[in-house]
Amino acid sequence: MKAATFITGAAGFIGSNLADRLLANGETVVGYDNFSTGREEFLAAAIRQPHFRLVRGDILDEKALTAAMEGCARVIHFAANADVRFGLEHPERDLQQNTLGTFRVLEAMRACGIRDIGFASTGSVYGETSVIPTPEDAPMPVQTSLYGASKLAGEALISAYAEGYGFRARIFRFVSILGPRYTHGHVFDFCRKLGENPKVLQVLGDGTARKSYLTVEDCLDAVLTVFAQTSGGEKTGAKGFTRIYNLGTDEYCQVNDSVGWICAVLGLKPERQFTGGDRGWIGDNPFIFLDTKKIRSLGWKPRFTIRQGVEATVAWLKANPWVFSPR
Amino acid sequence: MKAATFITGAAGFIGSNLADRLLANGETVVGYDNFSTGREEFLAAAIRQPHFRLVRGDILDEKALTAAMEGCARVIHFAANADVRFGLEHPERDLQQNTLGTFRVLEAMRACGIRDIGFASTGSVYGETSVIPTPEDAPMPVQTSLYGASKLAGEALISAYAEGYGFRARIFRFVSILGPRYTHGHVFDFCRKLGENPKVLQVLGDGTARKSYLTVEDCLDAVLTVFAQTSGGEKTGAKGFTRIYNLGTDEYCQVNDSVGWICAVLGLKPERQFTGGDRGWIGDNPFIFLDTKKIRSLGWKPRFTIRQGVEATVAWLKANPWVFSPR
Repeated sequence: MKAATFITGAAGFIGSNLADRLLANGETVVGYDNFSTGREEFLAAAIRQPHFRLVRGDILDEKALTAAMEGCARVIHFAANADVRFGLEHPERDLQQNTLGTFRVLEAMRACGIRDIGFASTGSVYGETSVIPTPEDAPMPVQTSLYGASKLAGEALISAYAEGYGFRARIFRFVSILGPRYTHGHVFDFCRKLGENPKVLQVLGDGTARKSYLTVEDCLDAVLTVFAQTSGGEKTGAKGFTRIYNLGTDEYCQVNDSVGWICAVLGLKPERQFTGGDRGWIGDNPFIFLDTKKIRSLGWKPRFTIRQGVEATVAWLKANPWVFSPR
Repeated sequence: MKAATFITGAAGFIGSNLADRLLANGETVVGYDNFSTGREEFLAAAIRQPHFRLVRGDILDEKALTAAMEGCARVIHFAANADVRFGLEHPERDLQQNTLGTFRVLEAMRACGIRDIGFASTGSVYGETSVIPTPEDAPMPVQTSLYGASKLAGEALISAYAEGYGFRARIFRFVSILGPRYTHGHVFDFCRKLGENPKVLQVLGDGTARKSYLTVEDCLDAVLTVFAQTSGGEKTGAKGFTRIYNLGTDEYCQVNDSVGWICAVLGLKPERQFTGGDRGWIGDNPFIFLDTKKIRSLGWKPRFTIRQGVEATVAWLKANPWVFSPR
């Protein structure tokens, strides 16, 4: 049996999908989550598996984190405050949960002698880059959100640990991820609002913002492809490394497109009310589109289009209305 | 009388030189320092000035920081752990003092309604870039030191505050700074070692590393040039901005050159013992050379060569041997 994968944020959207995927592959998983946004329901299948262990804890609690991590072979660090939009309302949250939290994960790994890490970063680290589609080595950007800043800081810490302590780091810059267990972001917001009032839909901005999405299935295919190609002593040696990959599709859509697909699945024709302006909130980026040549060069490619991802997400939300209820 | 400039790290090498410079210009200065590495002696002249106020405090103490900052017009944030070499021995120090510390400064500013900030960042944020001389918009680098990571995170936070809260940010990526009150770095280490044993000098690495330096006088000229050209309501408006400038000379030297200049000033001919390898320590960068076209386009240029800077620094250290003594 392979040594365990430790997943932070294991009860979250992407983390719980990863847990299920690894367990289905016969792997052993230790899931760690503080359930601040994670859902017990997302681990309902995992906790019935003999090779899954769930530990309730906060990544900022370094002692508990270290104890839980002991004996694992690798860490996939997905725990984060993923709420890019409301950063300015509580400016310390991203710093604590995404930057300090990543530091605690790195220190726990160092204490446990674990050097293999995967990290969920974000295309938001590119700020409002002038290079679109944006490659991993885009010109050094200016940060426009506390979320992007906190994730860039997390990347920087991980890279310094790779150089200084021989960590083997895989950093993934995600576009927005869609799919089963999706619980925040624009598709979620639109579906919730349409559930409350099917006749009117308020859209932040003017509806022309261009965004990229990727399904959680394709996202995890990419993460596991990278791990498969960068693991094993012969391949990686004793020296640390930092590999950075954009994850996204080769397309983007407008918010208006997405609204149309959502309404079609729900069978609704609401009046669209736009708040106006080319961005939904301060620090919102009106055009996100990542260059994914690098991850594609490893043989990965997405199986689903953005439209398929949006439609599947709406279908899942429709079948799981409980996720809209406060816990 | 102009409203006060608040200097964090005011008792440090660069901070105390800035305080003296502003006071000589007739400006009002509030200096803030926890004296962890700052020296009271460096403020001996400043504290005799009526327009100078010294507040002893830690930047991590947000309450004290906010109280001290009240009523100031702008903040020049120089307080930092500037010890790039020993980061791996205490990995949380850079994060706390440089990243968290910068966050506390930003929050104190927000509480006081101050939006103008200057920040001492570092050429270390470029890691081991492939583009030399390195411009501000170099390809996104991989961090190689906890120091560089912590400063990049500080930059990122400041930029997010510029976007989100309308801060007017000037970020300076320094090469190593030389001159009076210089108290850490290779010239300091070499002079200290030669004071202890004038016959043998141990040099980290193989002596061929290429490094850039700038004098503190030229550095402060540049900082004040940028502030002069980016201040005042008509010029800057209500919207925030982030301006990033490399600061350095248009030359570099080898460690061996520098050793020669130091020994010549001291009248010594020690045997050089090299520890070997192309870098002095893990995360050391064997070639640092910044492109300074951007700051030069504002009319600034350095007045001193690297050699002059090294020689002046050695002369100052020779005249101030007390800085080698533990406090």
